[in-house]
Amino acid sequence: MDKILRVNMTDLTTRTEPVPAAWAGLGGRALTSTIVAAEVPATCHALGENNKLVFAPGLLTGTPAANSGRLSAGAKSPLTGTIKESNAGGTAAQMLARLGVKALIIEGLPKADKWYSLHVSKDGVTVQEESELIGKGNFAVIEALEARLGKKTGILTIGPAGELKMTAANISVKDPDSKIRSHGRGGLGAVMGSKKIKFITINDEGAPGVKIADPEKFKVAARTFAKALLDHPVSGEGLPTYGTNVLVNILNEAGGLPTKNFTLGQFEGHDKISGETLHDTIVARGGKPKHGCHAGCIIQCSQVYHDKDGKYVTSGFEYETIWGLGADCCIDNLDDIALADNIMDDIGVDSIETAVMFGVAMEAGILSFGDSKEMLRLLRDEIGTGTPLGRILGGGAASVGKAYGVTRVPVVKNQAIPAYDPRSVKGIGITYATSTMGADHTSGYTIATNILNVGGFVDPLKKDGQVELSRNLQIATAAVDSTGMCIFVAFPALDIPECLPALIDMINARFGISLTGDDVTDLGKQVLKTERQFNIEAGFTKEHDRLPEFFKTEPVAPHNAVWDFSDEEIDEFWNF
Amino acid sequence: MDKILRVNMTDLTTRTEPVPAAWAGLGGRALTSTIVAAEVPATCHALGENNKLVFAPGLLTGTPAANSGRLSAGAKSPLTGTIKESNAGGTAAQMLARLGVKALIIEGLPKADKWYSLHVSKDGVTVQEESELIGKGNFAVIEALEARLGKKTGILTIGPAGELKMTAANISVKDPDSKIRSHGRGGLGAVMGSKKIKFITINDEGAPGVKIADPEKFKVAARTFAKALLDHPVSGEGLPTYGTNVLVNILNEAGGLPTKNFTLGQFEGHDKISGETLHDTIVARGGKPKHGCHAGCIIQCSQVYHDKDGKYVTSGFEYETIWGLGADCCIDNLDDIALADNIMDDIGVDSIETAVMFGVAMEAGILSFGDSKEMLRLLRDEIGTGTPLGRILGGGAASVGKAYGVTRVPVVKNQAIPAYDPRSVKGIGITYATSTMGADHTSGYTIATNILNVGGFVDPLKKDGQVELSRNLQIATAAVDSTGMCIFVAFPALDIPECLPALIDMINARFGISLTGDDVTDLGKQVLKTERQFNIEAGFTKEHDRLPEFFKTEPVAPHNAVWDFSDEEIDEFWNF
Repeated sequence: MDKILRVNMTDLTTRTEPVPAAWAGLGGRALTSTIVAAEVPATCHALGENNKLVFAPGLLTGTPAANSGRLSAGAKSPLTGTIKESNAGGTAAQMLARLGVKALIIEGLPKADKWYSLHVSKDGVTVQEESELIGKGNFAVIEALEARLGKKTGILTIGPAGELKMTAANISVKDPDSKIRSHGRGGLGAVMGSKKIKFITINDEGAPGVKIADPEKFKVAARTFAKALLDHPVSGEGLPTYGTNVLVNILNEAGGLPTKNFTLGQFEGHDKISGETLHDTIVARGGKPKHGCHAGCIIQCSQVYHDKDGKYVTSGFEYETIWGLGADCCIDNLDDIALADNIMDDIGVDSIETAVMFGVAMEAGILSFGDSKEMLRLLRDEIGTGTPLGRILGGGAASVGKAYGVTRVPVVKNQAIPAYDPRSVKGIGITYATSTMGADHTSGYTIATNILNVGGFVDPLKKDGQVELSRNLQIATAAVDSTGMCIFVAFPALDIPECLPALIDMINARFGISLTGDDVTDLGKQVLKTERQFNIEAGFTKEHDRLPEFFKTEPVAPHNAVWDFSDEEIDEFWNF
Repeated sequence: MDKILRVNMTDLTTRTEPVPAAWAGLGGRALTSTIVAAEVPATCHALGENNKLVFAPGLLTGTPAANSGRLSAGAKSPLTGTIKESNAGGTAAQMLARLGVKALIIEGLPKADKWYSLHVSKDGVTVQEESELIGKGNFAVIEALEARLGKKTGILTIGPAGELKMTAANISVKDPDSKIRSHGRGGLGAVMGSKKIKFITINDEGAPGVKIADPEKFKVAARTFAKALLDHPVSGEGLPTYGTNVLVNILNEAGGLPTKNFTLGQFEGHDKISGETLHDTIVARGGKPKHGCHAGCIIQCSQVYHDKDGKYVTSGFEYETIWGLGADCCIDNLDDIALADNIMDDIGVDSIETAVMFGVAMEAGILSFGDSKEMLRLLRDEIGTGTPLGRILGGGAASVGKAYGVTRVPVVKNQAIPAYDPRSVKGIGITYATSTMGADHTSGYTIATNILNVGGFVDPLKKDGQVELSRNLQIATAAVDSTGMCIFVAFPALDIPECLPALIDMINARFGISLTGDDVTDLGKQVLKTERQFNIEAGFTKEHDRLPEFFKTEPVAPHNAVWDFSDEEIDEFWNF
């Protein structure tokens, strides 16, 4: 029987609850957002006693469906003040799903000034005091816990940044290689830190496993689905070969690679940090060009990067990170970027927020554009130890902008704008403006259609069709984020006719139900509306669905494009 | 002929313009808010090229009317994101009024990385480059400018905090003794700093002066008005004797003196920082217990405080400052508080925002409650020089709360809550919640009726009548702030029947018009509605008209009172 695990950190009690009927058909983002909207007062302090931190595996997580092992984390975000869902790979989602844990809800704040850990097993969840690992980085936590509890233990953990309640803090998830994946965006690590939980372990010994209502139907659909993933040129070829960093040269060519804190659209040093260079370097040094962030992934985009001596530096080395520390900070040294990624994993900060923050910090004169050594020092010695400067930087791009009076601060709803310039890739600008999460490329990845010609083509430099494109993708993504699927299944789903029906067939076979395509679309719409209603109750209006002023007034080379959507055109997004 | 002076900092041009008909009947806050609402896009970056900084003397400023010499400064606030009006005494308002300057509007941002100064005279306004005084404190600026331009020069200036664009930065105004009064709240010093204007000088040689349409009628009304001010026990006796700091013992007695970052309602050391102690200390050391912030003030509440050696330390030494650094930071050493006030004047930060900030910083562990020496060091060496810690502190209470993850942060719309606990003085809580300016006691000073029995009595511990009280006072205050009058004229205006008609008679006699009491009330309502409309367009909703969560959940001694207004009750405020 599926269940809800609930932890009250105020009185340190735990409960196992049946799944309410209204939540039975939900998973992943649909479930975390529904729970947060139902149980968290929208105007509460995100680090206060009334916020809740919710983890939920997706509807298909724990089944043999390819790429279905993502875990959603949700709460009111201390960075944006909006509702937040951030999903990650790693081993935790599948373990929770096999244990029948539909959601883990953590509420309240401890009264004592002590640190704790949570332990999930087939018997439920327990709270323990923790002192040994407080102050430690995420790699040390994982190493120590594997020694303490065994190699197979699932782990969610926060680094020093989360302990210090920095709003760029993320939550780390152990991956199949005992390395790190992240619930990156929105400062959820600070919420976990506010509840004084250093880590959560998962032991799935004796787990009942996931029951599939119609195994034969499931098997057929799963095969069709997997084939579509492998057949599509992006998910079957581009991503497995070059990782997500395949995008550096593509975006540079398109003039949409934000450079030098969003003052240029192309980076001179793009070749040195490109996916092609990354691939060759990884191969030459004996790293892994293909690597999955969770068991069952057949795209294998998360590469393992080694240093010159062939030693592990980082994995899950994403385009957005490399773009941010690279082009946006004018750093063309992949080794330094990889080392920075390692440190960000260890101290536990979102690599997008932090990379964009460094671009703003460079503009503020805290360090110079291109100074990768000082960037590494700031990460390790300032953010990692919580000095005053570290706290400003650890608050993300908007925090630095405020402290230093910078006006060119690429954020929406206080969250950093990632790797695609909205002036020259206009669809993604609509997503940044309207996403319920603050600026977030994953919530409606128009790059697919604007740049990669997936799902048709909508000219990135023109306004026509962008609102509709972003709307359709945000609705679809909200649904996909609820299945536990990796967002990259969207590529075949947009192009290969059998893919989406196979995905729906898997859900139907899993639960013995009969959802239609329209039902899935309705779920996506419902998720967006639930999230938006929370934001409205938190005080957000259409005036917050806007890009920063400088995108309107500063044309970006090479297209000399500006952000030219009127407010009314943006607001069309919510007409559904 | 009255005129508008307009300065464009982008191309460094200036213009003298006729007063548009729609602005002719406006002054002070009514005029700054009308101009900001008309000319500043509500969603602009407050430190960006589209914000404007507006100065306007009141309708009666420059006339012989008692207490009419206040200057309004307006802009979009970088602290709150709302519209902002902050008014101050000093000599500038009357000089501008005598020059016929209805408003000085400063727009744009310089292209070059240079600093400038503005110079207002009978011939208009000019822009000059400035280098000598950049980085200097306000006292040094005033001294140097008096040496450079003559003792009579009017001066508006920003300190290092304004240059660094800190959101607690204020704008200083030279007072009749070449000391400092402040446009304190809302970070307007950062707006002036963003426009790279270090100071503005005013030379009123050859000024036409203020013409009064009906001098005889004016004289009679002015006499009645002045008599009312002198006859009222608060403006005629309490304030002249003890200054505003008369309130320490009164609020302590009422249990409404926020102590130790708003965790208590009474301060053990209240006697040591009280108005009575302050008065005796000033007298014993040869300071001035009575002192006016501008020529023509007959209340004389702004005392001059000397050190043990009889040397000047500070003036305009207000209750809210002494409360904040005293009770709220648990410091009972008046000399240290006075020294801190001197430093705040010199570096140019709002003494309310900064004092409340220190309470939050003490809770965050940056320094200990009661540690006045470290407070002085932080002011001078960190805020004053713009270290990273100084930038966090110079961002005000909310900035510290965010950087250190503190949840007990007494702010509304990001601006610090002053010296009256809203749980035990409930009327002022309605003002804090609903003010268009963020938390601001001066925008609807219910303390008059809740605590001082002026204008009747509304029990501070009960909810009944508070919304109406705050509404009436906020409407009246918006009108009074437009006349150039000191807010303390409200005491006699509420109790002495002849006072308000005399004030209106003075306006009518000055302009040869015939406003009624209703017209003045309508002006107040119009000002509030204009300001609110700006805020709505900036993205503010009723969800922002709320006090921080902890006021609802943490009862405050000695009454164990909580903030118990429902959202609907608060929102009644805007029904007019």
